[in-house]
Amino acid sequence: MSVQVNKTAHSFDKVRLDALLNRRFFYAPAFEIYGGIAGLYDYGPPGSALQANIIAEWRKHFIVEEGMLELDTTIMTPAPVFETSGHVARFADWMVKDTKTGDVLRADHLVKNVLEARLAGNLEARGAAAIPQNENDKKRKKKAAKVTATALEDSVVKEYETILAQLDNYSGPQLGELCRTHKIRNPDTDNEVGEPQQFNLMFASSIGPTGQHPGFLRPETAQGHFLNFSRLLEYNNGRVPFASAQIGRSFRNEISPRAGLLRVREFTMAEIEHYVDPEDKNHDKFKEVRDVELILLDRHVQESGSSETIRMKVGEAVDKGIIANETLGYFVARIYQFLVKIGINPERLRFRQHMANEMAHYATDCWDAEIHNSTGWTECVGCADRAAYDLSVHSAKTGHPLVVRQALKEPIVTEKEAVEWDKKTLGKTYKKEAGVIQKVVESLEEAALIKLKGELTQGAAVITSEDGKSFKLTPDILSIERKVFKQSIREFTPNVIEPSFGLGRILYTLLEHSFWSREQDVERGVLSIPPVVAPTKVLIVPLSARIEFDPLVQEVSTKLRRAGVFSRVDDSNTSIGKRYARNDELGTPYGVTIDFASVQNRTMTLRERDTMDQRIGPMDEVIATVTDLVNGSINWAEACQRLPAYDGVQAVD
Amino acid sequence: MSVQVNKTAHSFDKVRLDALLNRRFFYAPAFEIYGGIAGLYDYGPPGSALQANIIAEWRKHFIVEEGMLELDTTIMTPAPVFETSGHVARFADWMVKDTKTGDVLRADHLVKNVLEARLAGNLEARGAAAIPQNENDKKRKKKAAKVTATALEDSVVKEYETILAQLDNYSGPQLGELCRTHKIRNPDTDNEVGEPQQFNLMFASSIGPTGQHPGFLRPETAQGHFLNFSRLLEYNNGRVPFASAQIGRSFRNEISPRAGLLRVREFTMAEIEHYVDPEDKNHDKFKEVRDVELILLDRHVQESGSSETIRMKVGEAVDKGIIANETLGYFVARIYQFLVKIGINPERLRFRQHMANEMAHYATDCWDAEIHNSTGWTECVGCADRAAYDLSVHSAKTGHPLVVRQALKEPIVTEKEAVEWDKKTLGKTYKKEAGVIQKVVESLEEAALIKLKGELTQGAAVITSEDGKSFKLTPDILSIERKVFKQSIREFTPNVIEPSFGLGRILYTLLEHSFWSREQDVERGVLSIPPVVAPTKVLIVPLSARIEFDPLVQEVSTKLRRAGVFSRVDDSNTSIGKRYARNDELGTPYGVTIDFASVQNRTMTLRERDTMDQRIGPMDEVIATVTDLVNGSINWAEACQRLPAYDGVQAVD
Repeated sequence: MSVQVNKTAHSFDKVRLDALLNRRFFYAPAFEIYGGIAGLYDYGPPGSALQANIIAEWRKHFIVEEGMLELDTTIMTPAPVFETSGHVARFADWMVKDTKTGDVLRADHLVKNVLEARLAGNLEARGAAAIPQNENDKKRKKKAAKVTATALEDSVVKEYETILAQLDNYSGPQLGELCRTHKIRNPDTDNEVGEPQQFNLMFASSIGPTGQHPGFLRPETAQGHFLNFSRLLEYNNGRVPFASAQIGRSFRNEISPRAGLLRVREFTMAEIEHYVDPEDKNHDKFKEVRDVELILLDRHVQESGSSETIRMKVGEAVDKGIIANETLGYFVARIYQFLVKIGINPERLRFRQHMANEMAHYATDCWDAEIHNSTGWTECVGCADRAAYDLSVHSAKTGHPLVVRQALKEPIVTEKEAVEWDKKTLGKTYKKEAGVIQKVVESLEEAALIKLKGELTQGAAVITSEDGKSFKLTPDILSIERKVFKQSIREFTPNVIEPSFGLGRILYTLLEHSFWSREQDVERGVLSIPPVVAPTKVLIVPLSARIEFDPLVQEVSTKLRRAGVFSRVDDSNTSIGKRYARNDELGTPYGVTIDFASVQNRTMTLRERDTMDQRIGPMDEVIATVTDLVNGSINWAEACQRLPAYDGVQAVD
Repeated sequence: MSVQVNKTAHSFDKVRLDALLNRRFFYAPAFEIYGGIAGLYDYGPPGSALQANIIAEWRKHFIVEEGMLELDTTIMTPAPVFETSGHVARFADWMVKDTKTGDVLRADHLVKNVLEARLAGNLEARGAAAIPQNENDKKRKKKAAKVTATALEDSVVKEYETILAQLDNYSGPQLGELCRTHKIRNPDTDNEVGEPQQFNLMFASSIGPTGQHPGFLRPETAQGHFLNFSRLLEYNNGRVPFASAQIGRSFRNEISPRAGLLRVREFTMAEIEHYVDPEDKNHDKFKEVRDVELILLDRHVQESGSSETIRMKVGEAVDKGIIANETLGYFVARIYQFLVKIGINPERLRFRQHMANEMAHYATDCWDAEIHNSTGWTECVGCADRAAYDLSVHSAKTGHPLVVRQALKEPIVTEKEAVEWDKKTLGKTYKKEAGVIQKVVESLEEAALIKLKGELTQGAAVITSEDGKSFKLTPDILSIERKVFKQSIREFTPNVIEPSFGLGRILYTLLEHSFWSREQDVERGVLSIPPVVAPTKVLIVPLSARIEFDPLVQEVSTKLRRAGVFSRVDDSNTSIGKRYARNDELGTPYGVTIDFASVQNRTMTLRERDTMDQRIGPMDEVIATVTDLVNGSINWAEACQRLPAYDGVQAVD
């Protein structure tokens, strides 16, 4: 019934997409009229709305569905917090300086760019498809190293491929070694680069009028969760597992951001910290996701120098130990479901496990949701098992216990030897050394205590302190007896599973996956954003700005608002065709047209974005149909059964 | 029918409210386990949800209702932007230092605290009600100056009152003068304070690895709107009026924040920039709000040393010129409607006009929505007419025109004298001086040009340059003719009306206005937050955590979620009464109880928070009723007509 559309008639063209996003103000470089600052972007109306809708869906999918506890903590953070968390010492990238110009480059990106260019040049020299040097590449020449057609030895090709597969695994000195061994230079100047140095990625500031409190802008929202753990636990009536969630801005002072929204200095994150008993990482709802099939790239495959993925159900991946536990697996699957729901192409979504050296200092296992786009595979969501790291270090530093105290159903009953002192006699006999003696005895193992007990029943025993001094003990000083102990509370530091979403990266890759051009005209771009996150759901198009259409425009607009459907009116002075074309670029899935027939017969046409198919019906029926379409309760084929096709002609007196 | 409740049986007690908010984790000092930092707060689950609901309602009330263009711009801002906007030079408070300890105090707060304490002491000395020195005051002793019972001359009392009424109007040197004249010292130490000095309130940082770009954290979101003006205008098809809106974090490095959420260093704002033709500040929808009655405190009243308010309809206030124009009046009224809708007591809401010196450097008129609370009147929303200030300065600095170009319906036709040069002859005759001559002639007024034209028809004329040189001009060098000019485009810089909301202050005053204690027990606090913004709308209370209740809990929870009603389950191990009391503190307006009768008869009880009234009905009918209550389509009295009262006894086999 519904029209078929060829979305792949033209190959993906990033230049065209970027121009569209700029023209329609999805986003733009911040402070553009001041010349801009790399890595800072402002979202315009469609970009903000798309982001707000992704966030709303995220809230539903995670917070509401799982009953998570939402938080909103501060960005400005006093330095001691990040000293404890390890960020002051280790949240850094390796940078190298051009030895002549002083330009700063990120070391791993430099190695990647140069080796990839050499591999491409090798292919070209060997007569494979020449690398297209289109507008796009020219514009990005500062980013990509220049490709020169030079053949490489097979062994060199293999070596480069292995380096690239393991790139995230190298330390700074190793990257420096790679630059020397493989003569990697700054591609912009062909100058040598110096030794890699660490650059901390946190923005620094200071708090208060006298600068007494050094502070940092948070590079992630996570610490705000951890510091409030006790309050959250109490709010949850003292029980685990539970999760806290937060959506907010974070900051990373990237060394040289040049990849649009994929690498920025300020970004919106959505983070979950799921607190779980370290002895039981099973998940109640895991059975609901067991059969979700994922594309996986595990640690061992990468460490062997390969990038080959496998398809596997998450249940099987956990059963086989590829994914460490059910909770981690559950969130990996939920992340997958969320991304696909908002419009990410599942064929371009893989989960890659971190290699040993690559892992953040706090993580014990980590899987990244990577989304494929025109720049390659990009990490968009991290899903890490941070174990007890964060809660332990903050607890140790502040002395504030960040633990769960669980009443045991069956108290644990143990019998052991217990020492009882006659402190008066001990003190009188040994004065200052009494403390040392107590310490020595109380650190004795069970067997040694039993031995000591035996000796005491014989009248006396001799113990030796660490520094070799001997003391004689007698039964008037201490007695040792077997006693029964009952432990009814178990105290433990929960482990934390952290799904962490970079919303800007998700938003950008979603735009790439949604973009195509009409078969008949490559200039007519369309963003097929799913209705659930589309910035505007319905465009209301009066034939012209004539005053007689106003009451109907008002009526439709009010009725859609009451139905919870976000619409916009476009009564600008251009043809209806041009207005629809503009809204195809904005990703607006549906359009309704109000014309003279609407005034006379109260009919309205309904247009679907991708197919450009048009239907007609009474206004209220069109409103009801479009509401069902937007809410996902019917699809376009079903809508077509409700509303007849519009043949472009309407009876008007 | 419905029960009457006495909410004022106990007078407001801030200590009790603060304890409740802390206990239930509405918010708490950030980094508390690290000792905290003044002016930084984290919102816990109920606080985050309350904030999110206020934001959602704000979006509906302003952005959706008015079709505003939403933005999301960066917090980190390069210094040149704030140099141009004037913030680097002028966004500062006056601080004084204790001459001995070096402690830093905000100068105006110091004057206020000390004079208010003296006035209170005077009242006490004269036998009026002694100032209660309760727990609350003791805890806040660092904030309020100590009250000593000392009588003051009538003239001194009058003088202090005048100073306090005009406090926001003093410059730094004037504040210094006040401290000297009235012997105002640091109340904590009784030491003298030094001369007031300016302290810039922006947090500084630097962008990029080499520190090449100094930057600031934005103290307001406004500049992000202005810098994108051209793009926004284009998005709006080139027309004004229109508005942009943004909700986001801003930062102010307050000198010594000590008033909870009312004065913080990091806060969420919601800002609107409404762009309007400076020659037409009428508003299409003003007629819809003409009759909204407001409590006003205008500039002249304050400047005369009084704080007396008047009640007036906004229509009248604009007609009388008290509020400068319809657009400003429209937004003042819409702000009022919004605040009252979310639960602010309209009797404790006034609009205060800024005095001349008090106004921000960019504003030409400004009205603050001030909300009364236990600390006095607090500015929670500003509504300023920033005129063309911001767009003009950024445009001048960057050379990027931030203007509206409007096609005139009727072109403006003018006749004037036009000069035509024979450049060849001019050049040949005067060589290098040709430019000077052109400049002199073209800067002539109409009358002088006519005179010159007359002389030229006589054969020759003489002109004199600025530096006194004379040149002879002849008809072969230039001719002057009367010509008709047609101007069909009008170009202008729009004015900006800016409603700017401090969401944390609104949230806190809303909590104060919502708080009361049960008549029969002052320990039982209630937050009567309106359903529209309440963190949780419905509490689901199973009689116990027994497994037989689980399917019903699931069912009710799912049905409420589908109806768009946010609920939470409380199956903790305490009595139903205690669970309801806890949720009265959380402001949850409705509760449903699932018990053995629910399992057997599928009935459920519904409880209303304020009255504690309980009704009973079939589960689906209770769900439908509570959905209507939450959406505001029925009130409790109507709900009582649908559902019979619950007498506490249910038939169970």
